[in-house]
Amino acid sequence: MRDMHDACHIAIPARDLDEAVAFYAGGLGVKLARRYPDRVTFDFFGDQLVCHLSEDVPARPVPYPRHFGVSFARGEDYDRLLRLVELRKLPRLGRPSVRFEGTAEEHRQIFLIDPSGNVLEFKCYDDPRLMY
Amino acid sequence: MRDMHDACHIAIPARDLDEAVAFYAGGLGVKLARRYPDRVTFDFFGDQLVCHLSEDVPARPVPYPRHFGVSFARGEDYDRLLRLVELRKLPRLGRPSVRFEGTAEEHRQIFLIDPSGNVLEFKCYDDPRLMY
Amino acid sequence: MRDMHDACHIAIPARDLDEAVAFYAGGLGVKLARRYPDRVTFDFFGDQLVCHLSEDVPARPVPYPRHFGVSFARGEDYDRLLRLVELRKLPRLGRPSVRFEGTAEEHRQIFLIDPSGNVLEFKCYDDPRLMY
Amino acid sequence: MRDMHDACHIAIPARDLDEAVAFYAGGLGVKLARRYPDRVTFDFFGDQLVCHLSEDVPARPVPYPRHFGVSFARGEDYDRLLRLVELRKLPRLGRPSVRFEGTAEEHRQIFLIDPSGNVLEFKCYDDPRLMY
Amino acid sequence: MRDMHDACHIAIPARDLDEAVAFYAGGLGVKLARRYPDRVTFDFFGDQLVCHLSEDVPARPVPYPRHFGVSFARGEDYDRLLRLVELRKLPRLGRPSVRFEGTAEEHRQIFLIDPSGNVLEFKCYDDPRLMY
Amino acid sequence: MRDMHDACHIAIPARDLDEAVAFYAGGLGVKLARRYPDRVTFDFFGDQLVCHLSEDVPARPVPYPRHFGVSFARGEDYDRLLRLVELRKLPRLGRPSVRFEGTAEEHRQIFLIDPSGNVLEFKCYDDPRLMY
Amino acid sequence: MRDMHDACHIAIPARDLDEAVAFYAGGLGVKLARRYPDRVTFDFFGDQLVCHLSEDVPARPVPYPRHFGVSFARGEDYDRLLRLVELRKLPRLGRPSVRFEGTAEEHRQIFLIDPSGNVLEFKCYDDPRLMY
Amino acid sequence: MRDMHDACHIAIPARDLDEAVAFYAGGLGVKLARRYPDRVTFDFFGDQLVCHLSEDVPARPVPYPRHFGVSFARGEDYDRLLRLVELRKLPRLGRPSVRFEGTAEEHRQIFLIDPSGNVLEFKCYDDPRLMY
Repeated sequence: MRDMHDACHIAIPARDLDEAVAFYAGGLGVKLARRYPDRVTFDFFGDQLVCHLSEDVPARPVPYPRHFGVSFARGEDYDRLLRLVELRKLPRLGRPSVRFEGTAEEHRQIFLIDPSGNVLEFKCYDDPRLMY
Repeated sequence: MRDMHDACHIAIPARDLDEAVAFYAGGLGVKLARRYPDRVTFDFFGDQLVCHLSEDVPARPVPYPRHFGVSFARGEDYDRLLRLVELRKLPRLGRPSVRFEGTAEEHRQIFLIDPSGNVLEFKCYDDPRLMY
Repeated sequence: MRDMHDACHIAIPARDLDEAVAFYAGGLGVKLARRYPDRVTFDFFGDQLVCHLSEDVPARPVPYPRHFGVSFARGEDYDRLLRLVELRKLPRLGRPSVRFEGTAEEHRQIFLIDPSGNVLEFKCYDDPRLMY
Repeated sequence: MRDMHDACHIAIPARDLDEAVAFYAGGLGVKLARRYPDRVTFDFFGDQLVCHLSEDVPARPVPYPRHFGVSFARGEDYDRLLRLVELRKLPRLGRPSVRFEGTAEEHRQIFLIDPSGNVLEFKCYDDPRLMY
Repeated sequence: MRDMHDACHIAIPARDLDEAVAFYAGGLGVKLARRYPDRVTFDFFGDQLVCHLSEDVPARPVPYPRHFGVSFARGEDYDRLLRLVELRKLPRLGRPSVRFEGTAEEHRQIFLIDPSGNVLEFKCYDDPRLMY
Repeated sequence: MRDMHDACHIAIPARDLDEAVAFYAGGLGVKLARRYPDRVTFDFFGDQLVCHLSEDVPARPVPYPRHFGVSFARGEDYDRLLRLVELRKLPRLGRPSVRFEGTAEEHRQIFLIDPSGNVLEFKCYDDPRLMY
Repeated sequence: MRDMHDACHIAIPARDLDEAVAFYAGGLGVKLARRYPDRVTFDFFGDQLVCHLSEDVPARPVPYPRHFGVSFARGEDYDRLLRLVELRKLPRLGRPSVRFEGTAEEHRQIFLIDPSGNVLEFKCYDDPRLMY
Repeated sequence: MRDMHDACHIAIPARDLDEAVAFYAGGLGVKLARRYPDRVTFDFFGDQLVCHLSEDVPARPVPYPRHFGVSFARGEDYDRLLRLVELRKLPRLGRPSVRFEGTAEEHRQIFLIDPSGNVLEFKCYDDPRLMY
């Protein structure tokens, strides 16, 4: 378990801040914390995501090795994320799938793509003890 | 505040997994969760960090736009991180500094570099309500 | 999530304090904290509600733009509120309804009216992450 | 104490939504959750504040009987709010003061005014058990 | 909700400390904290119960006005208590019953009797918000 | 530690309910939950206290064997209780004292008397682990 | 309940540290915290397990009197442990069983054996209040 | 951090159960949960300790490789344990000391001996993040 008062901090490039706000706040439903000319910060599922205005964005979205997201401890939270993705037609990279099926590490996962080509992963392990 | 049962998930490249284990577990003091031939996973301050074996590592460490780390809610936790960095002589990018001094967003920060050139940031806001 | 030790503070007008106590404590089941000649304070679902004796009460109850209440994270808590409203025949403004049906913001809601014409809203989002 | 997963819900009028965003997000440092043509929603210190576009705003800001805000359990959180008000020169209604001095109900308080004339109160009781 | 670090403190008479230990620890399954010649202390469902050796015990067990016990927030905890009472054949005062049926205050309850004639009540409200 | 969602339940006699409300709510600052012709219920420091209208009240207040109250885990909470007792001149049974001084069980304590002669004890152990 | 910030500390012998890591981290899925030439430390279900390199290991695994493990409060966590044992074919001492069936102390249990012959017990009581 | 509802489980030999109760409950101040002819169970700092009547006790107390105890997250809890050891003159194995001084793993520690020769360790790390 993690400390509820600290925040994980993730900084990524965004080619356009309005796009980033539209995707993260309007799409994913995360909260916009602060906006500056060169970056925008979000309360991303309780952690801090910062989108820095930058031209150094991925040429095309590839899931490995760089991505970020949330590993949900409860299946219903993962289900709600899936439902949000469908309702708001958020851009996915592939389809929701099950990884390491039949092993202790089995988990459901989905990859999304933000407007700058950054890849997000949301997942949920059958056994939350193995989420690390 | 964030849910203590979920975990933020961050995946980054590592050119060598032994190096990654030496830096993250032996240096930063995070816990090694699982090791596979192509990746190693850590309980990174309560969140999940995955180092994927990859040649796609940064040519040289640059702090923006990509980095990740922890925003501590309590100053003593930031102080302990600084002390660990000194005791174990972890490689820094620049010196610990204060950002946005004299404003509501004022915070202390330090950048570290992992063996693959990934940049980490640890920080602590004067007013934890503004950590997002 | 919110800090469990702080309290949101809401102050509203009441044309008669006995009426206010009868509705809020005897009806809604909130706890009476302190009573003074010119106001009464309540532990309103964990937050602080203060009814100030005042003639500046609404001419008639209108739901927008001013109202206050609780957004429940769990459906069973909303169900219990509905049941209380029925059992104690608390005065409603319209019927319980579903708002933004079929969207990510979908939530159930009910409006109540206090004796001074103040409007209360209780609601519950399908996806608690979108309750803000 | 209150449930950390529920949210108190407060709806108020705003004559202009951009003004509201500038004051609440840019000034008070609360998080912008969702924006629609007729309203904007905030994560206001962990509770939900909704500003509805409306011409029914106060003629002039008066502290009683209607206001809302936060009652902090810890003095340092109140101090931080005061410091934010100074640093960002947020519009106050009067000066910070002490109410009911020398009694069990003693508390520090400050009133702010939002751009539409709504009044906010932030306070901190010497004895947090009496904050209701 | 209550503070999890504090303890409610209840002191009652016991005509015999061995009897008290047999009933409270051996029967009800509460933990024995400390024993002195004139009293024994228990961790009674997280609160502190002290049995003082005394001849001032009830002439016969009567449920009102004096009794003490636990109001469970979750039905399954009340069910487990009932099951324990059956399995260990703890002495009851009457049968488990439902009080205020069909009202918002409806709750299940059972009265037990300790060896000195003190009466205990365990109960569970349909709506935990009304447990006070 | 105890479950924060359950409540300890204490029922005592009161010769007059108005007196009880004046002492418990107006004096001790506990919250009035529900009032009926024959009893009144309080949120007593997070637990449930019920005062039953009864003539079976103590002939005179004696501290042993029957009393009830709170064992505070933090010294500052005990200090605040002492200050409340002074500010509101609540009736005490003796003076605040230290019990078992110089032993591991050392604790500060104060006895109060309610209008019906019931005795309350508030205390605070040097080592909270020994509060049971 | 226990304090979530403290850790129980258990130190046991291991005849070979690689074997210990393979069993505890690779098998049981606990996290490797620190490794030294003469010992390895684990985050064992939130507590600290230390395996000291030693020849003083059990001649053969016997369940009594020495063993250690986890008593799960929730049945689904016990079920997940059983599933892990099956999926990863961890060495058991006997079969999963039910102890004290039909009594208040009824619980499910399973014994495992680590590579050095230390015995682990995982269990789950029907009534978590009796887990001590 | 660990789950507050689960319990670590430690079973050790005791040559005499009365001795064990005297040391653990009367000395260390842990709570006696259940006593049977062949064993006694304790709520040991929130975890479960079981002393099994057995002749297989240590020939003489040696600190390594087998011991158990608590790693406190807060220095004041360790200090209180030290004070208890002094006040009640509990048998120690050596003096309180500091281990790994000047390194990130620095911690204070004390070893105690129970009547059967089992060794207990209580400790406190400067940096609680390294307590595993």
